[in-house]
Amino acid sequence: MIGIALLGAGRMGRVHTQAISAAGAKVVAIYDAIPTVAEKLATEVGAIACGSAEEAMGYSSVGAVVIATSSDTHVEYLIKAVTLGIPVMCEKPIAPTLVEARRCIATIGLERAKSVFLAFNRRFDRGHSAVREAVLAGQIGRLEQLTITSRDPFPPPLDYVSRSGGLFRDMMIHDFDTARSILQEEPVTLTAQGSSIIEPEIGKLGDVDTAVVTMATATGKLAVILNSRRCAFGFDQRIEAFGSDGMALSDNPLRSGVRYFTKEHPGAPDLIREFFLDRYGESYKLEVESFLAHAASGAPMPINAIDGLRAAYLAEAATSSLATGMPVQLTSIEQEF
Amino acid sequence: MIGIALLGAGRMGRVHTQAISAAGAKVVAIYDAIPTVAEKLATEVGAIACGSAEEAMGYSSVGAVVIATSSDTHVEYLIKAVTLGIPVMCEKPIAPTLVEARRCIATIGLERAKSVFLAFNRRFDRGHSAVREAVLAGQIGRLEQLTITSRDPFPPPLDYVSRSGGLFRDMMIHDFDTARSILQEEPVTLTAQGSSIIEPEIGKLGDVDTAVVTMATATGKLAVILNSRRCAFGFDQRIEAFGSDGMALSDNPLRSGVRYFTKEHPGAPDLIREFFLDRYGESYKLEVESFLAHAASGAPMPINAIDGLRAAYLAEAATSSLATGMPVQLTSIEQEF
Amino acid sequence: MIGIALLGAGRMGRVHTQAISAAGAKVVAIYDAIPTVAEKLATEVGAIACGSAEEAMGYSSVGAVVIATSSDTHVEYLIKAVTLGIPVMCEKPIAPTLVEARRCIATIGLERAKSVFLAFNRRFDRGHSAVREAVLAGQIGRLEQLTITSRDPFPPPLDYVSRSGGLFRDMMIHDFDTARSILQEEPVTLTAQGSSIIEPEIGKLGDVDTAVVTMATATGKLAVILNSRRCAFGFDQRIEAFGSDGMALSDNPLRSGVRYFTKEHPGAPDLIREFFLDRYGESYKLEVESFLAHAASGAPMPINAIDGLRAAYLAEAATSSLATGMPVQLTSIEQEF
Amino acid sequence: MIGIALLGAGRMGRVHTQAISAAGAKVVAIYDAIPTVAEKLATEVGAIACGSAEEAMGYSSVGAVVIATSSDTHVEYLIKAVTLGIPVMCEKPIAPTLVEARRCIATIGLERAKSVFLAFNRRFDRGHSAVREAVLAGQIGRLEQLTITSRDPFPPPLDYVSRSGGLFRDMMIHDFDTARSILQEEPVTLTAQGSSIIEPEIGKLGDVDTAVVTMATATGKLAVILNSRRCAFGFDQRIEAFGSDGMALSDNPLRSGVRYFTKEHPGAPDLIREFFLDRYGESYKLEVESFLAHAASGAPMPINAIDGLRAAYLAEAATSSLATGMPVQLTSIEQEF
Repeated sequence: MIGIALLGAGRMGRVHTQAISAAGAKVVAIYDAIPTVAEKLATEVGAIACGSAEEAMGYSSVGAVVIATSSDTHVEYLIKAVTLGIPVMCEKPIAPTLVEARRCIATIGLERAKSVFLAFNRRFDRGHSAVREAVLAGQIGRLEQLTITSRDPFPPPLDYVSRSGGLFRDMMIHDFDTARSILQEEPVTLTAQGSSIIEPEIGKLGDVDTAVVTMATATGKLAVILNSRRCAFGFDQRIEAFGSDGMALSDNPLRSGVRYFTKEHPGAPDLIREFFLDRYGESYKLEVESFLAHAASGAPMPINAIDGLRAAYLAEAATSSLATGMPVQLTSIEQEF
Repeated sequence: MIGIALLGAGRMGRVHTQAISAAGAKVVAIYDAIPTVAEKLATEVGAIACGSAEEAMGYSSVGAVVIATSSDTHVEYLIKAVTLGIPVMCEKPIAPTLVEARRCIATIGLERAKSVFLAFNRRFDRGHSAVREAVLAGQIGRLEQLTITSRDPFPPPLDYVSRSGGLFRDMMIHDFDTARSILQEEPVTLTAQGSSIIEPEIGKLGDVDTAVVTMATATGKLAVILNSRRCAFGFDQRIEAFGSDGMALSDNPLRSGVRYFTKEHPGAPDLIREFFLDRYGESYKLEVESFLAHAASGAPMPINAIDGLRAAYLAEAATSSLATGMPVQLTSIEQEF
Repeated sequence: MIGIALLGAGRMGRVHTQAISAAGAKVVAIYDAIPTVAEKLATEVGAIACGSAEEAMGYSSVGAVVIATSSDTHVEYLIKAVTLGIPVMCEKPIAPTLVEARRCIATIGLERAKSVFLAFNRRFDRGHSAVREAVLAGQIGRLEQLTITSRDPFPPPLDYVSRSGGLFRDMMIHDFDTARSILQEEPVTLTAQGSSIIEPEIGKLGDVDTAVVTMATATGKLAVILNSRRCAFGFDQRIEAFGSDGMALSDNPLRSGVRYFTKEHPGAPDLIREFFLDRYGESYKLEVESFLAHAASGAPMPINAIDGLRAAYLAEAATSSLATGMPVQLTSIEQEF
Repeated sequence: MIGIALLGAGRMGRVHTQAISAAGAKVVAIYDAIPTVAEKLATEVGAIACGSAEEAMGYSSVGAVVIATSSDTHVEYLIKAVTLGIPVMCEKPIAPTLVEARRCIATIGLERAKSVFLAFNRRFDRGHSAVREAVLAGQIGRLEQLTITSRDPFPPPLDYVSRSGGLFRDMMIHDFDTARSILQEEPVTLTAQGSSIIEPEIGKLGDVDTAVVTMATATGKLAVILNSRRCAFGFDQRIEAFGSDGMALSDNPLRSGVRYFTKEHPGAPDLIREFFLDRYGESYKLEVESFLAHAASGAPMPINAIDGLRAAYLAEAATSSLATGMPVQLTSIEQEF
């Protein structure tokens, strides 16, 4: 049974701990910037609370590292784990800024960057995976249009917004990764449009709460991403891949198969999943399973630091396009950073 | 263009008139027990209002007869049309009682009974037809279980109930015909259960408003029919045919493909069709088309007087089973009448 | 019963003739550039075949005109009908080019332009209407994002493409009108992206077969239109209106409520409607009903020549944006033409 | 953390062990008739493997007992646990025969029978629960018709069938319990019909593989249960509760929200759950949670031994009705046993 060093024992740290246990592995050492937070979780799961990330990664029983600390510490721990040769799974983003992310990858090198598992957990959603697999298997023929709709149930607090880097870097980053994983090709141009129609205060912070991004690839595939910071009916997460032979659609899974038939609403289905821990609950488990399996086999990670970088390029391009009102060539972004 | 003599210019007469016109034929002569009713419709469609059914059927331009008068006159007009050799479509039932229906068929003979089109219009519903065709084509393998749910939006007036012959003869008769058309085999035993749970006054009239009938065929197929005289969410008309290789289900068609997503009901579909003229509007047209096509070709009618008789046997068996609380062998009913 | 002069007795002329008859009105005079075509339909419906449009519009029994001739003749007949003071319904577009359309409106004046019914029949689709009404009734709160997906089952012949004016003017024009009718506000900026990914020959003609347009209004509403000239599973026509309190979605209506449950596809629904005469069959009827009702009451038409012009502005902007790769301000288009 | 004595370490014992752990409790002592089976599971979860059920129940750390041994041993262990005053959850059935089940309840007394949790896990299915709650909350008005469809993906081996007690006692027993829990009233009459249409060998064993049971309550509610030992498209488990104000329907939950649109099947949904460990996986967890919560509070169990007895009465009545072809009054069954 593989032992895990967990860095960061907050909400995501706990989510990963459960997934690790369900996958038959065990968290053996825990570090958190707040010692009592590490101690509390350590007591609960029978692990050692550590005074430093180094200590946590240093135990001989540790076979893999999971980084779930604040974004500004990812690079440091990631480089350390890579240097020690320990398989590492890192929460997104690699770094708070694109410059730092590029520097990190330059430091560890392209080869080792591919062995860093970057935690874009939505790739493991059963419905989203089925769409990607249908595309890869040629089930819908050649992919031509991709539409991703992604809406949070409610906006984050304003102080979070002010530190978030903006909707594209904080929220649409997931959809950029999803788009890349399904397109199987890099976008070459990108245009962003956005409004602060939900919450004017978000606009005052220079950010948007409603956005549409369109991207085109070299072979002419068109991708559209719609984001909203608020959705009255829950966590709206859908993908539509349209191709020459048909379409695969990942619709919002429902809480159950119950349907109600009243005079006003004959056939109303059950509610959709509330938010990410509910909707993507299973994905977090499958993600950790995938990480552990790849860690065990030594195979390159299916989602790695390069994917993190490429998604960040797209977020940067969108941020730039929104600011200028002009389309952005991805090559220009890649050269700039 | 074939000319039609229409007997009965009430609601169903008007429904058939529209269908006849849409099918490219024309009502040329109209008789109704109330002369002004015949005259009104005749004026509207440019037909001759006639003083008797004989007169209406006698015009040389008449190539087919449609009987939509009150039930107690069906036998007389039907025999007349058959004797004249004019193709005839007759509203169900053949006659108010089973004894009269048998006598009518004895009079015209089995062969000619097969050339009388009996208007079980639900056979022409697009969804129900698709289920029957799936069964006939072997798409679900060997049929094993058949479930028919049939619920009216609201109960009929009590004085209608008192004249109706009871739920089995008046309402479930449609489902008996549907069951026979899908089973492709006659039921051999039948058990009925019923309650007057909706409207106690219906119970006082000796009738039920809620009923379940189960039937078995010689090869062991089981059929269930659920009826209710009231349904809060509209006209609930569904069929489920389960077989060795799968299932075909005719669900309630919706008024449109619109769906509403609110906090309380994310994904609520549009309303289902209100009542029979809405739900089976297209069936009435396809029914007349089928009648006219068979009349033109002289082929035996796809639903004929024998089907009317057999459905009536099942209604009689159900009425008897409800009264005694015992299963009924269909052979005993067939011998009795 | 109002008498109609029908100009153009081709496919659309016949569709309108049926709708006129179903609405209780009557085509009394028919003109077509090919006399035999006019004569054939005239014989079928008992109308007069006319040697000129003037003749057709001149009969005293004519209370309204329907123009379904080739696009290049619309302006001439439209001006004539308006001058004669006869209510007129005109197939889209007003004119083959935006310049001519503007000139036509300048000629008849804004007031009278509002009394010309322009036949954007999709506004009368039951599902699409329900979405618009939900938005207007405030059922989804304030509208924020609008997504229109519109895909034809198969590409038109290449020679049609070469004469069509391009995808935006020929196909997306419908979606521009739909967007305007739901947004209840004019778009101020527009960006178009497109590919000839389906049929390279279309690309050689300078046109695209796959396109995405995004538009923003002054209040920050974002609209996205996805078009494709080919869809393997039929005529894909959907609208999604997302607002502060929920969402209304017009999904593809199905041919029936039948569903098939097999090992491979448990619950596969019936096919969607094939193409426009099937999908929008009911819309054509409701459209004519609406025209006749407004003609009778003398009220301004619910969709008029100004709507035709505004949709054409958007098509022009999209054509321009695609050519330059740049966003287009609608004001610049409006000033140019 | 409450300690559990687990009797029976086979498949269901393992399912319960996982659920116990997920619920934050712990299996501390394990007995199985085959010592190595107990030892294997004990090693895996850090429990004590015991030489007898008495030993397992005797540890001071044991606060509750879960019985998952073969049916013929349930009564013995159940009486022992009740005598020791330890809360007990027992797999269904209470005993292999109705006589033994009645004797067991007579021995422990009605009061204590209500404190035995009987493991009808389907009561904890999210969709089924929602239907029951909708009925109890009056959401569909007064319940009038209840339809339960329950089909296994494939028939059990013939030697299992020969030992099973027949379809009604082995398979439909679940649906009898479900029906009772939703009807909130005892059926007073029952009629069963069945065939061995799937597998003639099952018929030779005197059993059926396809069955329909109808039941009526004193107030006139009608319930129908359809069972099949084989279903081509998976584990078909549905409930439909129809009442004066509407209907609640628990449909088969799907593996994900993905839908495929091809020419042949536009909109085909994902597969339904395979079999009970997949479909009812969550129910097993919620069941144990409910048991532990009630055990902790000392409240009467929500599903107890009396429920087990009443469901067994219905199975007996169905078996008898099938044999005689006659309806059965439940009072006669209750007096007989």
